[in-house]
Amino acid sequence: MTTIDMNCDMGESFGVYKMGADEEILPYISSANIACGFHAGDPSTMRKTVRLAIENGAAIGAHPGLPDLMGFGRRHIDLLPEEAYDIVAYQVGALWGIVQSEGGRMRHVKAHGMLYNRATKEPELSEAIARAVYDIDPELILFGLAGGELLKAGKNMGLKTGSEVFADRTYQEDGTLTSRREANALIEDADQAANQVIRMIGEQKVRSQQGKDVDIHAETVCIHGDGAYALDFAKNVREKVENAGVQIQAIGG
Amino acid sequence: MTTIDMNCDMGESFGVYKMGADEEILPYISSANIACGFHAGDPSTMRKTVRLAIENGAAIGAHPGLPDLMGFGRRHIDLLPEEAYDIVAYQVGALWGIVQSEGGRMRHVKAHGMLYNRATKEPELSEAIARAVYDIDPELILFGLAGGELLKAGKNMGLKTGSEVFADRTYQEDGTLTSRREANALIEDADQAANQVIRMIGEQKVRSQQGKDVDIHAETVCIHGDGAYALDFAKNVREKVENAGVQIQAIGG
Amino acid sequence: MTTIDMNCDMGESFGVYKMGADEEILPYISSANIACGFHAGDPSTMRKTVRLAIENGAAIGAHPGLPDLMGFGRRHIDLLPEEAYDIVAYQVGALWGIVQSEGGRMRHVKAHGMLYNRATKEPELSEAIARAVYDIDPELILFGLAGGELLKAGKNMGLKTGSEVFADRTYQEDGTLTSRREANALIEDADQAANQVIRMIGEQKVRSQQGKDVDIHAETVCIHGDGAYALDFAKNVREKVENAGVQIQAIGG
Amino acid sequence: MTTIDMNCDMGESFGVYKMGADEEILPYISSANIACGFHAGDPSTMRKTVRLAIENGAAIGAHPGLPDLMGFGRRHIDLLPEEAYDIVAYQVGALWGIVQSEGGRMRHVKAHGMLYNRATKEPELSEAIARAVYDIDPELILFGLAGGELLKAGKNMGLKTGSEVFADRTYQEDGTLTSRREANALIEDADQAANQVIRMIGEQKVRSQQGKDVDIHAETVCIHGDGAYALDFAKNVREKVENAGVQIQAIGG
Repeated sequence: MTTIDMNCDMGESFGVYKMGADEEILPYISSANIACGFHAGDPSTMRKTVRLAIENGAAIGAHPGLPDLMGFGRRHIDLLPEEAYDIVAYQVGALWGIVQSEGGRMRHVKAHGMLYNRATKEPELSEAIARAVYDIDPELILFGLAGGELLKAGKNMGLKTGSEVFADRTYQEDGTLTSRREANALIEDADQAANQVIRMIGEQKVRSQQGKDVDIHAETVCIHGDGAYALDFAKNVREKVENAGVQIQAIGG
Repeated sequence: MTTIDMNCDMGESFGVYKMGADEEILPYISSANIACGFHAGDPSTMRKTVRLAIENGAAIGAHPGLPDLMGFGRRHIDLLPEEAYDIVAYQVGALWGIVQSEGGRMRHVKAHGMLYNRATKEPELSEAIARAVYDIDPELILFGLAGGELLKAGKNMGLKTGSEVFADRTYQEDGTLTSRREANALIEDADQAANQVIRMIGEQKVRSQQGKDVDIHAETVCIHGDGAYALDFAKNVREKVENAGVQIQAIGG
Repeated sequence: MTTIDMNCDMGESFGVYKMGADEEILPYISSANIACGFHAGDPSTMRKTVRLAIENGAAIGAHPGLPDLMGFGRRHIDLLPEEAYDIVAYQVGALWGIVQSEGGRMRHVKAHGMLYNRATKEPELSEAIARAVYDIDPELILFGLAGGELLKAGKNMGLKTGSEVFADRTYQEDGTLTSRREANALIEDADQAANQVIRMIGEQKVRSQQGKDVDIHAETVCIHGDGAYALDFAKNVREKVENAGVQIQAIGG
Repeated sequence: MTTIDMNCDMGESFGVYKMGADEEILPYISSANIACGFHAGDPSTMRKTVRLAIENGAAIGAHPGLPDLMGFGRRHIDLLPEEAYDIVAYQVGALWGIVQSEGGRMRHVKAHGMLYNRATKEPELSEAIARAVYDIDPELILFGLAGGELLKAGKNMGLKTGSEVFADRTYQEDGTLTSRREANALIEDADQAANQVIRMIGEQKVRSQQGKDVDIHAETVCIHGDGAYALDFAKNVREKVENAGVQIQAIGG
C-alpha cells in the first residue's frame, strides 16, 4: 500500500503567547516538527508538545530555526556555516533533552523558515545542517524541500531523508515554491490541496503556475498548523488522501 | 590512593564577550562545567569549550542556569519547580547535542549561580532538578553543595552525586558558604585555599568563620576560572593538593 | 461632573505573536498603557499601538516590565533598586522615542505585572521607579495601586499620581487585591464589575471578600484587554459607569 | 582654527561582560557613541556610560544596532526599512531616557556595525534611519561614512550630519573602507593613523590601497575603544592631530 507522511510545525507558542492548534491537529498528522526555542518555543512549551505528540502517536522531530524570536525565524541572518552547524546541534540537543526526559524518541529534523529556505538553495549551509544532524545521531531523518540542496546534502552525508512537498503552496516550473510575496502562493481550497498531494504521490508530478508539469518526489507533506482554517484543512486533506488509497504514516514508521 | 575531583565553570563567554581563561585552566582541572546558553554561553562557545575539554581529558558536565544573561544567572527568578525541570532538561540536552556531535560524553551536571544556591536550600526545586537529570540519563552525576538539599535530592533519586566544596570560599558554622556580600567570603591566598581543601579531604572538616570545625564531605572541589589570579590559583591549589598525596581525578573517572 | 480614567494594558503582542484586542478596546478607554519591549512588545508593535492610541484620542502611557518575555513579566526577578531605576528609565525612554516620532505625547507611566505588584509593597523599589519617572519628566503621571507604596512614592517625589482600582478584581479587607491564585480573585460579571467601580467612585468604598467595606480612592480604573470577553466587558463597564453620570476621561485630560 | 571631532563606540559591555576601556579613553575623545541594548549595552551599563561621558565633557550619541547580541550586531539581518525605522526610534529613545534622567543632552546618532555598513550602501535603509532620527529630534546630528548613502539621506532629511572617517582603517579607491576580511584592512601604527587623519583634515584626501588619492571629507574621526592598544592609540592619534594644529571638539560643540 502507498504511504505518505503528513508533518506539521508545532510547539511554536512562547510563554503566554499562543500559536497554532497543536492539540486539535495532532490526530490528523504523522510527524510533529517541534520548535526548539530559537525562533519559537520555550522549554515548557516543548515538553507539553512532546507529551501531546507521544499521546497521539506522532513521530517527533526537531524544528530548529534562526535565533530571532522577534522575526519568528523568517528574516535572513547571515550565519557562517559553522554557526549554522552549532545552532542546529544545540537545538536538536535541547529537544532531545526534553524528549528523553519524557521517555520518547526523536525521529527527524526539519529546519524552520529562513534556515530551511536558504538551505534549499545553498550547498554549504545545507552541508553544515546535514552534518550537525548526522554527527548527533546518524539514524535521524532529515527533511528538506523536494529537489533542493538540503535533501541532497542529507543523502551525501548518508542520512535517511524525507522529500518534502507542500499541500497548500503552489509551485514554479523549476520545482521551487512560489514566493509568499506572490498573490497565488497559497492554496486555500482543501480539495485543490488534496488533489495536488494525491497527484504528487501517485504520478510524482505537480502542475506549476506556468501550466507545465514538474517532476516531484513526495515522502512527507507539510500541513500548516496556524491560521483560522488549519484544522479543517488538515482534516480534509487527510481524509481525501486516505480515500485515494494512501495511508498516512511517519517515514520509517 | 586518595582522589579528588577539581571542577571549574567554563564556556561562560557569549558571542564576542570573553569570560574566563578556559584554555589555560583546563590542564589543571578534572571536570569542566560548561554553560548552556541561559546565563552564559552560546552554541559556538559551547562547541569550542567541549573541544577543549576533550583535548585536555577533562570530564564534561552541563552547567545550566536561570534564563537571565543580563544578570548572569545570579539574580533570583521565581520559577515553578516544573519550570526548573524544563529549563534543566533543555539545557542539559542542548549541551548533549554539542557533546554528541563532537564525539564526547557528558558525565555530570552542576547547576549555576542562583539556581544552585536556591536548590541547596529548597527541597522542591532540588527534586525537580534531580529528576530532570535522572530522566535524561540516570548515569549522570549530580553535583551539589556538601550537605545541601540538591545532593540529598540526587541521592533520593538514585543518582550518583558529587559532594562539592569550595577552595576559595569560607564557611559558616552551619556548613553553608559565607555570603559573597560579607567581607571575608573569599579566600584569596592560594596556600590557605589549598590547606582548606587538603583538610576537607583528609579530615573531612573545615574551620568555620566562627572558629568552630564543621564536618564536610569533599568529592569535588570548585575552582573559579575568572578573575586576574584564577590561573595561578588553580595551579597552586592543584600542586599543593597533589603534594599532599591526593590525586586529581574526575568522579568515577 | 464626576470623571474617571479607564486604562488598559496594550501593545503586548510580540513579533508574530498576538495578544489582546487593542484596536477594538481603544474606543472604550481613556488611557493606553503600552508595553515597552521587556515583558512584551517590540518596536514595531509599539509604533502600531501608539498610532492606534493617537487615532482614538487615548492618553499614552509607558508600561515598563521586568526583563522576562518568557514569563511575561509575571515572575519575580530580584533586582536592586538601581537596576529597577535603570530598566524603567530605559523603557520609558524607548516608548518616548516611538511616541515622539509619531508626533504624540506621553502622559503617564504604569509598571507591569510583578514590577507593579512588588512596588505596591516595597518602599525602596517604589522610590526607584518614582524617581526614574520624575527624572525623565516631572510632568508624567505615575499610576499605582490605590493605597499602595508606589502611589505614596510618586507623591513624595512630587509627581502627579493616578490612584488605580480594578474593575474585575476582588479586594481584601486590607485594601489589597485578592491573589490570582484564589478562586474568587476575578469578577467575571460586567454588571458586578461596573457596580464595584461606580461605588468606588461615588462612595470611595469597596466591599471586601471578608464582607467589610474598605476605603478606596479611585482615579483610574484598570480594564483587562485580553481574554475572550475583554471587549464586551470593557463596553459594558464603560456604558454603566457613564449611565451613572460619570464621565470617562484621562487624568488631567 | 581647524577643528575635528573624535568619536568612539562606548557602553558596549553587557551585564557582567566587559568590553572596551571607556573610562580610560573618554578623556581623549569628544563624542561618545553609546550602545543602546540591541547589539550590546544594558540599561545599567548605559547609565554608567552616560555619567562618564558627562563627567568627561564628551558629547553623547546613541549607537543603535541590529537586535543580535550573539552576533554583536555584525551579522546582517534582513530588516524591512520600517523595521529599521522602529528599532532606531526605540533605541534612540531608550538612551534618551537614560540621558534625560542623568540631566544630560543627546547630541548625535551613529548606527552600529552591519546597520551602519548596510546603510552606507542602501538608500532605502538610510532614508529610514535618517527619518527616525529626524522624527525624534531634528536637532540631532547624524553620523555616516564620508561619501556614503546614510550621510546623503541625513542631508536630504534636513539633519545636521557628521562625515565620518576612520583613523585605523584603510580605504579603497572608490572611497569605501577595505573589508575587515582583507589582510591590510587595519592600520595598527598610531603614527600612520594620525598622519592619515591629518591629511584627511588638511588636504581632504586619503591615499587608497590602490595607491591613488581619493577625495574625502572629514568631520568626525572614529577611534576604536577595544583591543589591547586602544588607549595608547587614542592618545597618540589625539596628540599628533593636536600638534598639527587641529583642535579636537564635538561637532557644533
